[in-house]
Amino acid sequence: MTWGDKIKLSVFGESHGTAIGAVIDGLPAGEEIDFEEVKRQMARRAPGNDASSTKRKENDEPVVLSGVLSGMTTGAPLCAVIKNSDTHSSDYKNISRIPRPGHADYTAYVKYGGFNDVRGGGHFSGRLTAPLVFAGAVCRQILRRRGVTVGAHVYSIYGVKDKPFDMADISPSLLDSLSGRYFPVIDGAAEKAMREKIAEAQSSLDSVGGIVECAAAGLPAGLCGPLAEGAESEISSLVFGIPACKGIEFGAGFASAQMLGSENNDPFYYGGGEVKTRTNNCGGVLGGITDGMPVVFRAAFKPTPSIGMEQESVDLESRAGARLTVRGRHDPCIVPRAVPAVEAAAAVWALSAVL
Amino acid sequence: MTWGDKIKLSVFGESHGTAIGAVIDGLPAGEEIDFEEVKRQMARRAPGNDASSTKRKENDEPVVLSGVLSGMTTGAPLCAVIKNSDTHSSDYKNISRIPRPGHADYTAYVKYGGFNDVRGGGHFSGRLTAPLVFAGAVCRQILRRRGVTVGAHVYSIYGVKDKPFDMADISPSLLDSLSGRYFPVIDGAAEKAMREKIAEAQSSLDSVGGIVECAAAGLPAGLCGPLAEGAESEISSLVFGIPACKGIEFGAGFASAQMLGSENNDPFYYGGGEVKTRTNNCGGVLGGITDGMPVVFRAAFKPTPSIGMEQESVDLESRAGARLTVRGRHDPCIVPRAVPAVEAAAAVWALSAVL
Amino acid sequence: MTWGDKIKLSVFGESHGTAIGAVIDGLPAGEEIDFEEVKRQMARRAPGNDASSTKRKENDEPVVLSGVLSGMTTGAPLCAVIKNSDTHSSDYKNISRIPRPGHADYTAYVKYGGFNDVRGGGHFSGRLTAPLVFAGAVCRQILRRRGVTVGAHVYSIYGVKDKPFDMADISPSLLDSLSGRYFPVIDGAAEKAMREKIAEAQSSLDSVGGIVECAAAGLPAGLCGPLAEGAESEISSLVFGIPACKGIEFGAGFASAQMLGSENNDPFYYGGGEVKTRTNNCGGVLGGITDGMPVVFRAAFKPTPSIGMEQESVDLESRAGARLTVRGRHDPCIVPRAVPAVEAAAAVWALSAVL
Amino acid sequence: MTWGDKIKLSVFGESHGTAIGAVIDGLPAGEEIDFEEVKRQMARRAPGNDASSTKRKENDEPVVLSGVLSGMTTGAPLCAVIKNSDTHSSDYKNISRIPRPGHADYTAYVKYGGFNDVRGGGHFSGRLTAPLVFAGAVCRQILRRRGVTVGAHVYSIYGVKDKPFDMADISPSLLDSLSGRYFPVIDGAAEKAMREKIAEAQSSLDSVGGIVECAAAGLPAGLCGPLAEGAESEISSLVFGIPACKGIEFGAGFASAQMLGSENNDPFYYGGGEVKTRTNNCGGVLGGITDGMPVVFRAAFKPTPSIGMEQESVDLESRAGARLTVRGRHDPCIVPRAVPAVEAAAAVWALSAVL
Repeated sequence: MTWGDKIKLSVFGESHGTAIGAVIDGLPAGEEIDFEEVKRQMARRAPGNDASSTKRKENDEPVVLSGVLSGMTTGAPLCAVIKNSDTHSSDYKNISRIPRPGHADYTAYVKYGGFNDVRGGGHFSGRLTAPLVFAGAVCRQILRRRGVTVGAHVYSIYGVKDKPFDMADISPSLLDSLSGRYFPVIDGAAEKAMREKIAEAQSSLDSVGGIVECAAAGLPAGLCGPLAEGAESEISSLVFGIPACKGIEFGAGFASAQMLGSENNDPFYYGGGEVKTRTNNCGGVLGGITDGMPVVFRAAFKPTPSIGMEQESVDLESRAGARLTVRGRHDPCIVPRAVPAVEAAAAVWALSAVL
Repeated sequence: MTWGDKIKLSVFGESHGTAIGAVIDGLPAGEEIDFEEVKRQMARRAPGNDASSTKRKENDEPVVLSGVLSGMTTGAPLCAVIKNSDTHSSDYKNISRIPRPGHADYTAYVKYGGFNDVRGGGHFSGRLTAPLVFAGAVCRQILRRRGVTVGAHVYSIYGVKDKPFDMADISPSLLDSLSGRYFPVIDGAAEKAMREKIAEAQSSLDSVGGIVECAAAGLPAGLCGPLAEGAESEISSLVFGIPACKGIEFGAGFASAQMLGSENNDPFYYGGGEVKTRTNNCGGVLGGITDGMPVVFRAAFKPTPSIGMEQESVDLESRAGARLTVRGRHDPCIVPRAVPAVEAAAAVWALSAVL
Repeated sequence: MTWGDKIKLSVFGESHGTAIGAVIDGLPAGEEIDFEEVKRQMARRAPGNDASSTKRKENDEPVVLSGVLSGMTTGAPLCAVIKNSDTHSSDYKNISRIPRPGHADYTAYVKYGGFNDVRGGGHFSGRLTAPLVFAGAVCRQILRRRGVTVGAHVYSIYGVKDKPFDMADISPSLLDSLSGRYFPVIDGAAEKAMREKIAEAQSSLDSVGGIVECAAAGLPAGLCGPLAEGAESEISSLVFGIPACKGIEFGAGFASAQMLGSENNDPFYYGGGEVKTRTNNCGGVLGGITDGMPVVFRAAFKPTPSIGMEQESVDLESRAGARLTVRGRHDPCIVPRAVPAVEAAAAVWALSAVL
Repeated sequence: MTWGDKIKLSVFGESHGTAIGAVIDGLPAGEEIDFEEVKRQMARRAPGNDASSTKRKENDEPVVLSGVLSGMTTGAPLCAVIKNSDTHSSDYKNISRIPRPGHADYTAYVKYGGFNDVRGGGHFSGRLTAPLVFAGAVCRQILRRRGVTVGAHVYSIYGVKDKPFDMADISPSLLDSLSGRYFPVIDGAAEKAMREKIAEAQSSLDSVGGIVECAAAGLPAGLCGPLAEGAESEISSLVFGIPACKGIEFGAGFASAQMLGSENNDPFYYGGGEVKTRTNNCGGVLGGITDGMPVVFRAAFKPTPSIGMEQESVDLESRAGARLTVRGRHDPCIVPRAVPAVEAAAAVWALSAVL
C-alpha cells in the first residue's frame, strides 16, 4: 500500500510475521511529536483492550527508526515498526486449502499463487491498520497546529444509531472528546444498545457490522481540485484501504438521492466575515474542492467475516465443496476499532491537502 | 484530471470554451475501434436528446487526433476532441459574483482567485463527462474481446426504485441491453414512475437526484491488490470524479452494516469448474482483489444544483447576503445521463485492471 | 508521455497523423500568456526555417482549446493542438518491413506488434518536441514573473565547441539573448565552424550530433529533495524524453570524475547577503536540492539516424538481411532545433519545482 | 525516496539514526531469495572492508520484517531494516553552522529549516545506498530466473581507465564475475593504477572521483516506451538518486555527439534467428524502448566532498565567511563502493521493466 501525493504513506507487514510498520514521507521538518499521545491513539485500535474485541493482546509499541530527532521531525521519511508478539499461528492451518467466506483468503490465493502468508490474514489482516493509526496520530498533531481537528464516532452498529453530527456545526472540542475514547458515541445511551447487539452476535458465534461517521473541521476553502483530483476521490481511495470497508458517502450522501435540489443545496451566507453554508449536505466539498465547512463522511463496515459458525466453502486442492469452522480469536464487531483507522485516514488526507 | 496506472486518462476543457477532450494513454496496439458504436455511447450522454434533460443541444462529435490509424489503435496516446457549439454564455453573467448553492462556483473562485472560466460551470461542468464517456466507449470495445462486459441502470430516482441486479447472476446480455438505452431500467414500469418524479420537479422549478447501479461481468479473479491498491479504492477515485456523485458502495455496501456476518458472508462453491459465490454481497471484491464474480457498485448522485427557484447566496464583491435566481437550461435530473459516465468509469478501470 | 508532479504534461500525436499536442495540468490561474512570444519560441523549433534543417515546412500554429480565457490561464488543464500539414507519407513505405538503423522503427515494431504509425516516425518523431516547446514557452513566461530565466546554447557540434557558460556567473540577459535565436551560441565564430560541419555532413549524405548546454538562473535554494526526488532525477527523466538524447551531466559532470575533491568542491561565501559558491561544479544542485546558484546541465544528442547513405538492416518479413536507403527530408543535424526543446524541458521542470 | 511503477522502492533512514531500510513493493510471490547471496552483495558496499574505503565499520546485516516466508517472497511488501552501530556523532558538531562544500549540508539546512539530522550526512549519506543494494540483490535473483544478468565495473578513477565493455557482446559470465568482487575491473592491471591514485589522494588529504560502467544483458526487446516513459528516463531518475552521481550516458553517450550518423547508427542483422545490432552505440535503447541488446550506461561520480584539507565556507549563524576542516572517517574515493549501488539501481529498474 503506497498512497498519496504530498504525504506518501507505505504500509508493510503481515499479521503473524516479524513486524508491521509504516514509512511516512513528506512530513514537514521541525514538528514536535508527542509519542505518548501517539500511543494513546494506537491503544484505541489495539486488540484485547475491550470486551467487544478479539482476545489477541498486542501492546502495539511503535519503534521509530528514522525521521525524528530529539522528538522533532527531521523532514526525512519517518519509519516506525511494530513487533508482532501474541500470534497463535496454528489456528490458521487449513485456511490455505479452505478459504474463509468473506475473507481475502481465496483472492490472495489466486493473486499470489498460494505463496502469501495466510497466518492471521497476512497482509490483509485488520492488524495492518495499526501503522495507519500511527501515521494518522502523527499527522493530526501537525494538523492541530494548523487549526485542523479530526474526529469520528460509531454512527451505527447493526442498525442501532448514534446521534449524527450536526454537519454544519461541528466543534473541535466535540471531535477531541470523541478522539479520546475507545467506543466514541455522541449519545451515551447508544453505546449500551450497540454493545448489546455485539454481545448477542458474539454469543451466537456471529458478528455485526456498522458505520463510522468522521469529520475534519478547520480546513480552509480551496483545497484539492476538480474531477479525479477531488477531495472525495482522494479520501475514498484511502478509506477503502481499511479492510472491511464497503461504502463511503459525503455529506448527505445516499440520502441526497432522495432529496429535492431545493432541500439539498446548501445556502451561502456570511458568518463572522466568512462565507459559510446554512446546511452542509455537500459534506464540505463542492466540485471536489473544500468549501471551508467541516468535511464529513460516513464509511460502512461489513460484519467481521470470521465467525464461529460452520460455513460453506470449497477445498482448493481437491476442487470440491467443503465445510469450514473458523477457529482463532476474532472481533464480533470491528467497528469500534475501525474508528481510529478512519480518523487516521482522514488525518493523512487532510495533512496532504493542507501542506 | 489525470487518472490511472496502466490506462492513463487526462480530461481537459471548459463547458463554453473552444473544445473539450481526452488523452488516453496505455491502450494496447492493434485494437479495432468501431467509432459508430462510440458515437452511440456518446449520444446517450449528450444533452438535448430527451424530454427529461437540458435543452442545450450538442452533437458531441469526437474528432480523433492521434492514436488511431485505419480504425486500429496504434499504441500511441489517443487524443479526441469535441467542439463546444451551442453555448449561451450570457446566461452566466452574475455567477462570478453570486455563487450558485450546491455548485463549484464558490470553491473554484477561492482556488483560482476568480480567474476560472465560470461560463457553463467551466471545467466543473457535467459536460466534462463527455470525454470520459468517449474513453469508456473505446475501452469497453477492447474489454469485450477479453470477455468483460460493463453495464448500468437507473437504480432509483427520488426514492422510486428499479429492480436491482441479482448480484450473483448478471448476464452479459442484460448489461448489453442496458448499455444501448438512454433511460436504462431492468423493470420497465419503473421508468414511467421515475419520469413522473422528474417532470414534477421540473414543473416546480426544482430537481431530483438518484442512484446508478453498475456491474462489470467477466473479470477474472486476482486483479488489483490489498489496502490502497484495492479495486474499491481505484474505482471510487474515478467515480467521484463524475460531478454530483456523493456516495459509492460495493455489493451490499451500506446495507451490510445492518447484516450479520452469517448473512453477509458469501459462501464459496464450485460451479462449472470455477470457484463462485452463492451470493455476492462483497460486490466481487475481497481484500481489494477481484474474486471472479461480477464487480457491482452503486453511485449516489445529488439533485442537480441548478434550479429555477430563487435561492439564498452571497455577493462575493460586496461581501453581503444576496438572492439568486439561476437562469439557463438545466437538467431537472442528471441521473439518466450519468449512467453512461458511470459505465465509462467502470470500463476505464476494468481495462486498466485487466491489462 | 505523461510527466510530472505539480505540473503534469501529457504529449500526444504522430508525425503524419491529424495533429499533435499537449495537455498541461497544474498551471497557476491568472497568469497572462503572450501567445506571440509562444509562437516565436515554436518557430525556433519548427522545420524548414534554416538551411541546416529538414525541408519539411510546418507553420506549427498552436490552437488553444482550453485553460485560457481572455489571454489569462484559468487554472484548468491547458490543451493546445498543432495540425500536421506538410506530410509526404509515401517516403516511408518500406520502413514497416526494413527498420532504419538508429531509429525506433524496430523497437516500436516489437512493442506495438506492427500496428504503430510508422509514417514520419509516428509517435517517436522529433516532431513530438513541438508540444514540449509549446509547454515550455508557456511555463517560462510564468517563471519570468517569479524571477527565473531559462536559456541554452549549442555547446558543440561534431567536436566544434562554443564558449561554455561561466557556470558561477550566468546573467538573465545572456539567457534571454540566447533564447531569441535559432542557432544560439555565445561565441559567434563557433556558429560558422559548426555550420560548415553540418554542411559537410549533408553533402556526404551523412549527419552529425552535438551537445546542448542549458541553464536556469534565479531559482531559490531548497527546491526538490534527496535521492530519487532530486533535481537531477527529475530533469533527466524529462530531458531523456527528447528523441536522440543519449547523455546528461550536471555542472562539471563527467569532468568531475577526473578532478580532485579540492578542485571540485565549490567553496561557499556570502555575496550580497546571500550564500553563494565561488565555482559551480555541482551545477546548482547539492544532495538533489537546489543551492541558489544557476542549475546547469548538458545534454548529448546523437547524429540524426536518418541519413541518405545506404545502410545495413534486416527485412522483418522475410527474416533476412537487407539494404536500406532512407528517403525523405531529414535534418543533417538536429542540435540547433533541440535547443528550444531542452530549454522547454528545463522550464517545465523549473516551474514544477518553484510552485 | 519513493521510486518506481511496478516495483516501488521506498528508502528510509539517517546515517547516525537508529536504523536505515527499504520497503520493496511489487515483487512477484513465490520467488526464493538466497539471503547469503544478498549479504555478499551488501558486503561489497559496506564500509571498512578495504584499504581504500572509510574506516567506519558496519556489518550491514539486513533484518527482514515482512514479505518473506520460509525463504520465499509472499507478494506483500518486503521491508528490511539495517541497524546503525558504529557512529561517531561528535565528529559532526560544527556542520550545522558551517556547511561542508560539495555536501548537502547547506541545501538541507535551507529545505528543512535546520531540523534535519546532520550527523553523518543524515538522510543524504552514502549510507542510504545500503537499502538500495539490498533491494537490488533481491531483484537480481528474480531477474536471473528470467534470463537477465546485471553487472558493473570501475570504468575509470581520476582518469585511469579500465578496459570498457564490448557493448555489442557482453556475456552473463563476465557480469557475474564482476558482481562478485569489491573492486571489479575487466583489466586487472587497471586496478593497481587506480588504487595508487586513491592512495595519493588520501595521503594529500584529498579525494578522487570516477566512472562506473554498468550493463544488463538478456532483456527482451520491446520494454519501456517513448518520450518520458523511456528506459533512459527511468534508469537515470534512479541512478541520480545515488549520492555524488553527476552524469549518465547510454551506449556511446557523449561520444556520439562527436560521431557521424554513419558511424553511430547500429546496423541490424539476424544472428541466431534474432534481430541484433553489429555495434551497440545506442546502449540497447532506441526510442526509449529496449532493442534486445545489452542495456549499457555509464554514471559519473564526483570526488568525495569530505576531504581533510581546510576549505572555505560560511558560518550560517554569524552570516560571515569561515574556514572548515572536516573531521571524521571518509572514503578517499567512493567509486568502488558505488559499483554495487549502480548495479542495484539497474536491477530494480530491469525487474520493474520485465514484470
